[in-house]
Amino acid sequence: MRCFDSDYMEGAHPAIIERLAATNMEQTGGYGRDAYCDSAKEKIKKACGKPDAEVYFLVGGTQTNSTVIAAALRPYEGVVAADTGHINVHEAGAIEASGHKILPLPNYNGKISPEDLEKFMDSFYKDDTWEHMAAPGMVYISHPTEYGTLYTKDELKAIRGICDKYDIPLFMDGARLGYGLMANNTDVDLKTIAEYCHVFYIGGTKVGALFGEAVVVTKPGLLPHFFTAIKQKGGLLAKGRFLGLQFDTLFTDDLYFKIAKNAIDMAEKLKVVLKEKGYEFFLETDTNQQFVVLENVKMKELAEKVSFGFWENIDADHTVVRFATSWATTEEAIDELASLI
Amino acid sequence: MRCFDSDYMEGAHPAIIERLAATNMEQTGGYGRDAYCDSAKEKIKKACGKPDAEVYFLVGGTQTNSTVIAAALRPYEGVVAADTGHINVHEAGAIEASGHKILPLPNYNGKISPEDLEKFMDSFYKDDTWEHMAAPGMVYISHPTEYGTLYTKDELKAIRGICDKYDIPLFMDGARLGYGLMANNTDVDLKTIAEYCHVFYIGGTKVGALFGEAVVVTKPGLLPHFFTAIKQKGGLLAKGRFLGLQFDTLFTDDLYFKIAKNAIDMAEKLKVVLKEKGYEFFLETDTNQQFVVLENVKMKELAEKVSFGFWENIDADHTVVRFATSWATTEEAIDELASLI
Amino acid sequence: MRCFDSDYMEGAHPAIIERLAATNMEQTGGYGRDAYCDSAKEKIKKACGKPDAEVYFLVGGTQTNSTVIAAALRPYEGVVAADTGHINVHEAGAIEASGHKILPLPNYNGKISPEDLEKFMDSFYKDDTWEHMAAPGMVYISHPTEYGTLYTKDELKAIRGICDKYDIPLFMDGARLGYGLMANNTDVDLKTIAEYCHVFYIGGTKVGALFGEAVVVTKPGLLPHFFTAIKQKGGLLAKGRFLGLQFDTLFTDDLYFKIAKNAIDMAEKLKVVLKEKGYEFFLETDTNQQFVVLENVKMKELAEKVSFGFWENIDADHTVVRFATSWATTEEAIDELASLI
Amino acid sequence: MRCFDSDYMEGAHPAIIERLAATNMEQTGGYGRDAYCDSAKEKIKKACGKPDAEVYFLVGGTQTNSTVIAAALRPYEGVVAADTGHINVHEAGAIEASGHKILPLPNYNGKISPEDLEKFMDSFYKDDTWEHMAAPGMVYISHPTEYGTLYTKDELKAIRGICDKYDIPLFMDGARLGYGLMANNTDVDLKTIAEYCHVFYIGGTKVGALFGEAVVVTKPGLLPHFFTAIKQKGGLLAKGRFLGLQFDTLFTDDLYFKIAKNAIDMAEKLKVVLKEKGYEFFLETDTNQQFVVLENVKMKELAEKVSFGFWENIDADHTVVRFATSWATTEEAIDELASLI
Repeated sequence: MRCFDSDYMEGAHPAIIERLAATNMEQTGGYGRDAYCDSAKEKIKKACGKPDAEVYFLVGGTQTNSTVIAAALRPYEGVVAADTGHINVHEAGAIEASGHKILPLPNYNGKISPEDLEKFMDSFYKDDTWEHMAAPGMVYISHPTEYGTLYTKDELKAIRGICDKYDIPLFMDGARLGYGLMANNTDVDLKTIAEYCHVFYIGGTKVGALFGEAVVVTKPGLLPHFFTAIKQKGGLLAKGRFLGLQFDTLFTDDLYFKIAKNAIDMAEKLKVVLKEKGYEFFLETDTNQQFVVLENVKMKELAEKVSFGFWENIDADHTVVRFATSWATTEEAIDELASLI
Repeated sequence: MRCFDSDYMEGAHPAIIERLAATNMEQTGGYGRDAYCDSAKEKIKKACGKPDAEVYFLVGGTQTNSTVIAAALRPYEGVVAADTGHINVHEAGAIEASGHKILPLPNYNGKISPEDLEKFMDSFYKDDTWEHMAAPGMVYISHPTEYGTLYTKDELKAIRGICDKYDIPLFMDGARLGYGLMANNTDVDLKTIAEYCHVFYIGGTKVGALFGEAVVVTKPGLLPHFFTAIKQKGGLLAKGRFLGLQFDTLFTDDLYFKIAKNAIDMAEKLKVVLKEKGYEFFLETDTNQQFVVLENVKMKELAEKVSFGFWENIDADHTVVRFATSWATTEEAIDELASLI
Repeated sequence: MRCFDSDYMEGAHPAIIERLAATNMEQTGGYGRDAYCDSAKEKIKKACGKPDAEVYFLVGGTQTNSTVIAAALRPYEGVVAADTGHINVHEAGAIEASGHKILPLPNYNGKISPEDLEKFMDSFYKDDTWEHMAAPGMVYISHPTEYGTLYTKDELKAIRGICDKYDIPLFMDGARLGYGLMANNTDVDLKTIAEYCHVFYIGGTKVGALFGEAVVVTKPGLLPHFFTAIKQKGGLLAKGRFLGLQFDTLFTDDLYFKIAKNAIDMAEKLKVVLKEKGYEFFLETDTNQQFVVLENVKMKELAEKVSFGFWENIDADHTVVRFATSWATTEEAIDELASLI
Repeated sequence: MRCFDSDYMEGAHPAIIERLAATNMEQTGGYGRDAYCDSAKEKIKKACGKPDAEVYFLVGGTQTNSTVIAAALRPYEGVVAADTGHINVHEAGAIEASGHKILPLPNYNGKISPEDLEKFMDSFYKDDTWEHMAAPGMVYISHPTEYGTLYTKDELKAIRGICDKYDIPLFMDGARLGYGLMANNTDVDLKTIAEYCHVFYIGGTKVGALFGEAVVVTKPGLLPHFFTAIKQKGGLLAKGRFLGLQFDTLFTDDLYFKIAKNAIDMAEKLKVVLKEKGYEFFLETDTNQQFVVLENVKMKELAEKVSFGFWENIDADHTVVRFATSWATTEEAIDELASLI
């Protein structure tokens, strides 16, 4: 069956598998102290236009979010995020398990607004009971968001400005970053992100790697002893070179960007197909996730031919489902989908 | 200046102070292993109609909430609460610092509705990503709420029923319990609370004690090794007998109820005064807290004569303020207020 | 029965009780925002010779230790302490519950040695796996120690020097500080402590208060947003003025020192009695705790006449017990003890 | 250069790489909900002789230790371990970061003794201050230990008996389990371990996998909602099938045992070489780690020809170093070593 459930259903880009096989029996030091990691870090710093950045490799997204946030915050601080933010919904309370409150803002298709953020920050310190509350110590955004939407350059600039005003770092969850960077209608490129975010990560798991997230700290020293923090949080891969190897491959000859572009192209094709077939969009996005409203009866029929992701119930008879493309989606897969629905 | 800011502005009921002085130089064992604590526990169990309950004494409310909740939950669990619940707003992230997420429900003047709770619980386990989310492991309610409102017996029964359906405990924050029990329009008495709540506490700090909260565990064994848990959370008073002595005094000859009644009577008198003077109520309650909308200009004038609590800004020109009575409020104080405003 | 189990068996010094009663019905703001706390803080800063210090009041010792340590450390850091340190033994895992490892050093009758500390610190950073270990982020000492022993001025200076070398703070648990300060053979006074410790606390619970510990931060800013940290840890007393009132009383006319001196005088008298009666000392100290070895048979006989504290088993037939004097111990009590044993 | 630093210097067994490549572009569900994981779990349960066991796959050892321990303990509990246990030394305070104290016992070349454990447990509950201490809630052992030593069947039986007496689970860290199982002088096989341990894990990272640890819970229900616990701790691999695929391969045709046997054979050969060359053993073991004492001058010379692991300084002039073989070590490598030293 053709699957459009998510963007992590296949393995890794073949170039990664080949290189993995070719280097498999080499002996290297552990924990990321190896030439593959060193090389990958240099390439990422160059792509970000940040020669002084620190780069760290972790295995997965929830792990990365909780490790970065716990390393940046003091115990009395919480992290501001959209109420729909991944950390607030689908990370099993990992942030709170690290001791920190999530301070939710309303979301607009997954995004927070600079206006809401500014209002929240301003009113927080005007409240004379503020010392009885967890203080906002970081702002978390995801880009693309969990709804596949994207911040504009102006929005990032505004959010960063508010962070600067209150001297707190801006953290971007880039689990699907490639798909955001290669979207058709975006003015946000990697250097822009590196410019506006104090720390962010470049998602590998969902964009061509077997696993792996590359954390870029553009403000050196923001996360002191971060190697130890990663170890403590269980995110330190013993055979760390396979993280380096994957990112080194992805950041050679723009592979990361090229394969992310494929997901976008396939998503555009998918949108055409869905529209032609008369599907109603719940949310049409510029990235690799598209949200469609289905009657439940029809949803069950469709589910026998193709798989997709459950998103949410709208009412007793209708459901929102997600179709996701990825670096691995082929034209044939979309054509086949078109013939099935 | 007459102060109506809160219900913890004076010391303790004189009967407590007298007994404290009279017994001051006695020698007893520490940590609550003494005859005062034993006696107080018996009286509380009797008042609750729960001879098998466990009773523990802690010093303050935030401490009690975080100690009880952390003792009841497993790491993968969060606690359901009104978004306005004290634990979600004014406890400096204490629950999250214990590792647990607060799962917020909408509030209706501080209360959660059984309907919302049931819907939340039902949809939680119907969501096929539920294992990626912090599971609801306890329900927290405050009675009176932070807005001075009260649950009805039917509401408590319904909430308890939902807890039973999902086999999770119901916890009541009774920091102001006395004022709820003695309200004029309530069908909820102490035995009802002990019947419906797996664990709750009888607030001393705000109802006549210098400090102290009495936790009643109506389901023995719910909080294993709770003495150790209290110690770990820093809530174990070395000279624990002074907690016992206070509650023993409060639960002798219904003192707790009598002095709580005073706060209610004074609140009723206060409401009459405020209405006569033409004040607009934001929320008029049956307990000891009353919320009034003031023009900011008028608020500043008033603040020169009498003190009250800031609650929230409504708009650029209006503010909600709180007037609180207590066990210690006198008729003279209300009369003086009437003459000043 | 005469009790020598511990130094927290009576209530508070009568001067505190009198003042508590006299001011009981005053109205003040909560959480330590009151004139009593302000006054007490000024007196303590003056007694410490540290006009720029920050002073905070908490309720109990375990609470104070875990709150200070959690506020000072980053997540990747642990706290160095004697293996017999109170935080490592009798605080129910409170430090670990805050997320921090205790890094134990051998104790010499409760004290750590500067040599061991220096060796530990030096070898820690020489170990090429140090980044895989919790880093020493603070040094914790107790003075007097849990064994009633005292650091000398030279030892404190040496320990502080090592802390400075590694840029980590020195924290002193002064739960029994008064008894250390008034010991006969000590060259360490309050100003010495304030000079060498970045943060320490002056114990009230065991030295004349009903409860309360006064934290002195001699390096301003060491514990950012410490008010919020106290609130989060459940250590913020709503009627905070009673902490201020107690310390204000204790630091008026040197009351704290005078009553601590009584415990020392009574301990000296006790030592004479015990020696005259032929008791074997396990550890004879200059402070208010004395440790005696008893045959188990004799221990049981003695326990029928007088109470004391169990310390540890030596072998199948012998036990170490503790006799503690306090601010409240009278000459009559010692005389009576002499006549009973 | 030939490297004997550790057992995680190469990639994965070629059979894993081949299968990884062959199945790379398949689409499967995420998070371990796939046929590879199902198959691997069945094979592991069969190998353990425990059809009712639960099997979970995590990525790395520290992550597995902290996830299992946090899932098993209540907040007031700590975990008993050898002072040299991996969790107490080289996991960056991960257990404490989960809120739990490690209760150290003395080690005998890395092992705890049943006698010490029994004495500790018995005296714990005889101490009348036990409620002020973190309670022993689990026993952690590693097999092989960090020193390459092994428990005997009788020792495991005795330790399990003590655990049963106090109703606490026994947890075995099997990061190097294969090397223990295939040692020449052991009476402990996989079924014995599954019989005596409530929970243990079969290490993949160090025994032929790219990464991965298989947790076996022989007492179903011991770790409630463990999937969520893994997610919260950041140990849930999105493309979980690659964990299943690796363990499925390792547990097909006894591959895991065969490749572990290679490490043992090479270690035996290594021991002969070292002895022939006159090296002094610090500790000679039956597993894949051998510990040798070197003069520092000689150590530096040797380090130019071959790499090995630093273990500890003995004195100013001597160092203990570790030589580790692995599933990947060849006869040629040992021969080459012999010619170099």
